Amino acid sequence: MPEPLTDAQQVCWRAYIESSWALHTRLEEELRAATGLSMADYHVLVALSEAPDHRLRMGQLAGRLVFSPSRLTYQIASMAKRGLVRKQSCPQDGRGQEAVLTDAGLAALTAAAPLHLATVRDTFIDDLDDAEIAALTGVFGRLGPRLRATSHSA
Amino acid sequence: MPEPLTDAQQVCWRAYIESSWALHTRLEEELRAATGLSMADYHVLVALSEAPDHRLRMGQLAGRLVFSPSRLTYQIASMAKRGLVRKQSCPQDGRGQEAVLTDAGLAALTAAAPLHLATVRDTFIDDLDDAEIAALTGVFGRLGPRLRATSHSA
Repeated sequence: MPEPLTDAQQVCWRAYIESSWALHTRLEEELRAATGLSMADYHVLVALSEAPDHRLRMGQLAGRLVFSPSRLTYQIASMAKRGLVRKQSCPQDGRGQEAVLTDAGLAALTAAAPLHLATVRDTFIDDLDDAEIAALTGVFGRLGPRLRATSHSA
Repeated sequence: MPEPLTDAQQVCWRAYIESSWALHTRLEEELRAATGLSMADYHVLVALSEAPDHRLRMGQLAGRLVFSPSRLTYQIASMAKRGLVRKQSCPQDGRGQEAVLTDAGLAALTAAAPLHLATVRDTFIDDLDDAEIAALTGVFGRLGPRLRATSHSA
């Protein structure tokens, strides 16, 4: 049986989980309504747009997004059907598979980015002072690598 | 066109959205694997367990969870099918509908809580110092009410 949270930890956790869950829902709803993209689509497009030659091995992409291999396979198949990405064998070794950003995928990201940025500012970033920006960067900058290190995905 | 984020804001936002998205996925996966409950189920059970007489009007519950009315209707119907809650007319006025926690729902929450607490500690809370707890409580304590105030739900 784990130790109960202290009062301060409990207040912090409840504020965080309820509000950030609501924020994710809001971001997803606004993105979908304006562009038809899900947040998962958006994150895949961002990751590929920043990769050399706009391509990443499926394993790298799964690690970046902290997706299980099966969830990423499903996600990429859905995006390929909509023409946003394509899947191809790695040119280096022919064994692995890569996801590659298409011109249509880059265009969809470019069209969605200003709207998404406005939502991010209005709902979250514009409310934060410098000390809060620094605190959040520290906390969540440690969280991502920790989750990846204990990932259940292969 | 919104102003681009500063470098510090951009680093903060990327760390937050990628890591917290991954955290929510992890919490959902661990909860489902161990108990069959989704995070949405869990949040509804917590909200009802803390309400007077273990019951809340649908509108209050939607506000608390920042769910649209249609999403909450679907969520409660799914939970009623599994015996975790029931829906009934408000005794006060007979017009509105309430969600009521069942004994089975309370038992499911009681069984799930220690496991969920362990995951919350391991993945997030135990990593935070007092200053970070205070900063997160401030940021996310403001975020929830702000999202509710601009909710698209009725």
